Amino acid sequence: MRIALDAMGGDLAPAEPVKGALLAAKEYGIDVAIVGPRARLEAELIKQPTDARVQIVDAGETIAMDEDDIAREVRRNPEAAINVAMALVRDGKADAVVSAGNTGAVMASAFFVLGRIPGIERPAVGMLLPYNSADVFLIDVGANVDCRASHIVQFGEMGSAYMERVRGVKNPRVGLLNNGEESSKGNELTLEAHEKLKEAKLNFIGNIEGAHVHKGVVDVVVTDGFTGNIALKVGEGIADYVLQQVRAVIKSSVLYTGAAVLLKPALRRAFKSMRYEEYGGANLLGVNGVVVIGHGRSDGMAVKNAIRVAREAASSGLIEQMRASFSKPPAPSSLSSGG
Amino acid sequence: MRIALDAMGGDLAPAEPVKGALLAAKEYGIDVAIVGPRARLEAELIKQPTDARVQIVDAGETIAMDEDDIAREVRRNPEAAINVAMALVRDGKADAVVSAGNTGAVMASAFFVLGRIPGIERPAVGMLLPYNSADVFLIDVGANVDCRASHIVQFGEMGSAYMERVRGVKNPRVGLLNNGEESSKGNELTLEAHEKLKEAKLNFIGNIEGAHVHKGVVDVVVTDGFTGNIALKVGEGIADYVLQQVRAVIKSSVLYTGAAVLLKPALRRAFKSMRYEEYGGANLLGVNGVVVIGHGRSDGMAVKNAIRVAREAASSGLIEQMRASFSKPPAPSSLSSGG
Repeated sequence: MRIALDAMGGDLAPAEPVKGALLAAKEYGIDVAIVGPRARLEAELIKQPTDARVQIVDAGETIAMDEDDIAREVRRNPEAAINVAMALVRDGKADAVVSAGNTGAVMASAFFVLGRIPGIERPAVGMLLPYNSADVFLIDVGANVDCRASHIVQFGEMGSAYMERVRGVKNPRVGLLNNGEESSKGNELTLEAHEKLKEAKLNFIGNIEGAHVHKGVVDVVVTDGFTGNIALKVGEGIADYVLQQVRAVIKSSVLYTGAAVLLKPALRRAFKSMRYEEYGGANLLGVNGVVVIGHGRSDGMAVKNAIRVAREAASSGLIEQMRASFSKPPAPSSLSSGG
Repeated sequence: MRIALDAMGGDLAPAEPVKGALLAAKEYGIDVAIVGPRARLEAELIKQPTDARVQIVDAGETIAMDEDDIAREVRRNPEAAINVAMALVRDGKADAVVSAGNTGAVMASAFFVLGRIPGIERPAVGMLLPYNSADVFLIDVGANVDCRASHIVQFGEMGSAYMERVRGVKNPRVGLLNNGEESSKGNELTLEAHEKLKEAKLNFIGNIEGAHVHKGVVDVVVTDGFTGNIALKVGEGIADYVLQQVRAVIKSSVLYTGAAVLLKPALRRAFKSMRYEEYGGANLLGVNGVVVIGHGRSDGMAVKNAIRVAREAASSGLIEQMRASFSKPPAPSSLSSGG
């Protein structure tokens, strides 16, 4: 197992990605190739007091963050770290790419270097949310802000493949994020997607409201990338807010502070289960290789966890299964007896 | 000040609405008319040990909850409690309506009995979210699941009027809920709405991400009713979830439980600030009268707070201001010098 890490991606690059690579190499006993300008990475490695070893793959700087021209920038810079990391996977020299870089840049690079799996209309970004009751896979969290119903069905198929293959969930339950549970509820897009999801080869259990996403009633929540982004971000924001409130209350008096000292280890555990650093990263599904996108503010711990997510997907055979299941056109149910 | 309360609306009607009416009458010193079948309401009042007084306005039962036919059901039952309550406002016999009934039924009744304010394309439901940093008004939270950009601009105008008139916020800052802050980000709808909001007579400060809604950087967050519903519900769900986690940790050992006893009053305060019962209710804006919609599971405390919200709006002159500002067609800025 070998992971290619874009050492130049993210707000804290290259220091924190390098730190994360060393942590992962040590903890998981896997090969990690850190990709970026050799001199800068060597300088970072010298600062790290560890006996872990990673390999440097020399590459250029990161892509300039011009949102409008990101795809062109990616194509114009084949030596950019993210492109070199993708090429390692394309050429069979690594099993997965991890980057905390700009999501648009990572996606553009994956499309450019790895390409889509045949049969996939729109690759999408899915995020495994580790709630206490169960893990929930939310897809799409931002790749496709304007979707057709058929895209949402494919997101369901990709999310279902992920939960089954990577997470070992048998016959994953799929729910459509909606403004009500009844099948009569929804906007134009979700009303149509609901009908199409019922016809798909999926364990589709119906609509799911925003308030129930965390409850473990479904394994996969499908939605368009705009709504998914809002849901993910509101959830992160509110979780932070509530924890801040609890902290503020605890600090508000000497008496409480005394009690809080006793509670601290336990509260830290609760806080930890909410933090993005622990999630690891989001999965770009539908391209020809395992690609994990970390949070832009990823520190070493977050990068390490993103590598864990990538390793899990790479060892699962997910890509091979998706190639097999999407490459052949699905037999329309109305014609299935005519074959 | 007189509030008409639909005593038959909500999962816990009529017991909890009646309780809430009595609490509000006592605490706020206002007249509350409870609307519903006289015999049932009299039976409820007898059970309540209070010296508070409310008036009964006799009416029929509630509307059957058939989602598809809700508008027809409302029209067919002029004697239903919600319609009788609306008629009190229409006829100047009450200053506001409060109901914890089905949102679709309350909206249909408001359209049918009160009608829209001239110039309003689509009434919308706005919710005041009481974060510690500031109050934020989220609109639309579910009335209009498919919107045009022009609707979203009007939601901004209505939300801005609410925050200015009812909450005393000078020149309220308006943000568009979006999947990124940059003006280049968004789906088709938000890209167009962004441009239109810039041209509107609003203190539009740009896009706002889901993670920043609670931070008090804007006073009004505008969005279509589908996205607003998801944002509201995900926020509620995650807040509940995080508090459950904290509670579970606190209960997980005898040592922690001891500390938790000391912390309890403080934590209860933190929990309280997250609970919908305290919010009071959502405002249906754009109809010819003050209408507040409580949560379907409203208990007496929640109904009391919904009455507080209604009273605040009714005494603010909001409806008169909206009639004045929407009834005249706005002068397009490109023609403003041409008189």
